[in-house]
Amino acid sequence: MAYELHYWPTIQGRGEFVRLALEEAGAPYADVARGDGPKGRGMDRLMALLGDERAIRPPFAAPILKDGRRVIAQTAAILLYLGDRHGLAPKGEADRLWTHQLQLTIADLVTEAHDTHHPVGIGLYYEDQKDEAARRAREFRRERMPKFLGWFERVLAANPKGPAHLVGGRLTYADLSLFQVVAGLRYAFPRASKRVLAKCPHVAALHDAVAERPNVAAYLASDRRIPFNEEGIFRRYRELDG
Amino acid sequence: MAYELHYWPTIQGRGEFVRLALEEAGAPYADVARGDGPKGRGMDRLMALLGDERAIRPPFAAPILKDGRRVIAQTAAILLYLGDRHGLAPKGEADRLWTHQLQLTIADLVTEAHDTHHPVGIGLYYEDQKDEAARRAREFRRERMPKFLGWFERVLAANPKGPAHLVGGRLTYADLSLFQVVAGLRYAFPRASKRVLAKCPHVAALHDAVAERPNVAAYLASDRRIPFNEEGIFRRYRELDG
Repeated sequence: MAYELHYWPTIQGRGEFVRLALEEAGAPYADVARGDGPKGRGMDRLMALLGDERAIRPPFAAPILKDGRRVIAQTAAILLYLGDRHGLAPKGEADRLWTHQLQLTIADLVTEAHDTHHPVGIGLYYEDQKDEAARRAREFRRERMPKFLGWFERVLAANPKGPAHLVGGRLTYADLSLFQVVAGLRYAFPRASKRVLAKCPHVAALHDAVAERPNVAAYLASDRRIPFNEEGIFRRYRELDG
Repeated sequence: MAYELHYWPTIQGRGEFVRLALEEAGAPYADVARGDGPKGRGMDRLMALLGDERAIRPPFAAPILKDGRRVIAQTAAILLYLGDRHGLAPKGEADRLWTHQLQLTIADLVTEAHDTHHPVGIGLYYEDQKDEAARRAREFRRERMPKFLGWFERVLAANPKGPAHLVGGRLTYADLSLFQVVAGLRYAFPRASKRVLAKCPHVAALHDAVAERPNVAAYLASDRRIPFNEEGIFRRYRELDG
């Protein structure tokens, strides 16, 4: 049975980490809120999932993966689940947990990238927090992005199986997620990310290698890949780059 | 062999979620940076762990758990590991993943609680972002805290085994973590948390029940429990409550 992914239909957002895993795995799935049904029906289903008062295990937020009767939320938990089922995570306990640890660190980076344009309030518009965003983005560009990407560079360089993958000698969902982060940072901060990635050649090479994998390349070229835009996590506001 | 916990020695912080799991389990551990050795030696070991250029799997940040040769970072990953070993998580895959999903949502709440006093920059002082903190804290008190705690209330109310625990009929690390969040919110936002918790009786009751468990009670009464203070995640700044 095909998976159902329930996520906001106009952005990559956190759902993109799940989409990339499903696409690389060649797993059949419906991106429900983007579905072909009557307009808005998919969104109705997402809102119903989030608002279902009778749910025994209600999701707090999207993305949500449905696998038959199972309903899983939280990006890293979804990837933990998919990783085991589709060979996107190592089987050994230590390697599996390390892959998850990498994913949780990517999640922290993603939250900080989001907060560059929404430091004061998630419910406020960017336009109402531009000054604060400029301050936060400066720290992100100068301190946090180099620290995070530098750490991933170190992880790749230290991998006994070589720097092509974060864990062992095969692709994991953490590699897919790091690809997405690099793509997002390049979109949102073209100048700053260029500067930082110049010092992180393994990270940049991993991005390029993931983009060339047949399933990923086909996905990126399809209209299933929503373009980056200024509603998502990674937003290109010229004044926040530099 | 005793575990080693490596975490900042003057705060509860994210390390507290690990301490609570170890204490409830009665697992022997050394809180290394707080150790009795020569002054500063424990901190030196934490800094050495974080800065070790030869590490094959370097931790990005504390807390860090060492179990023999294994080094695990990221709070939720540490709890996933400890949960399996000490009966603090269910054994079935679905229940185990649901427990983890709850923990990841707690992690999101903790990050937002932290950001109330550091919205603009992690590296800046609170005093340099007081106005922005006031704006962010207002949204946190009015929107986010009710949303998060209301969701946990709903999860408890919907538990087929009763509202005493988040998952099934036994204590899990997610219960311990929710206890800690409630304690922290009560410390940092005494007025706002009182208002919100009045509508979340199951959450408040869970907090009290966890506090009375023998191992937890003994821990809370000991000097191993660092008092809340204004260096940690939950800080009492009167101007941010209301």
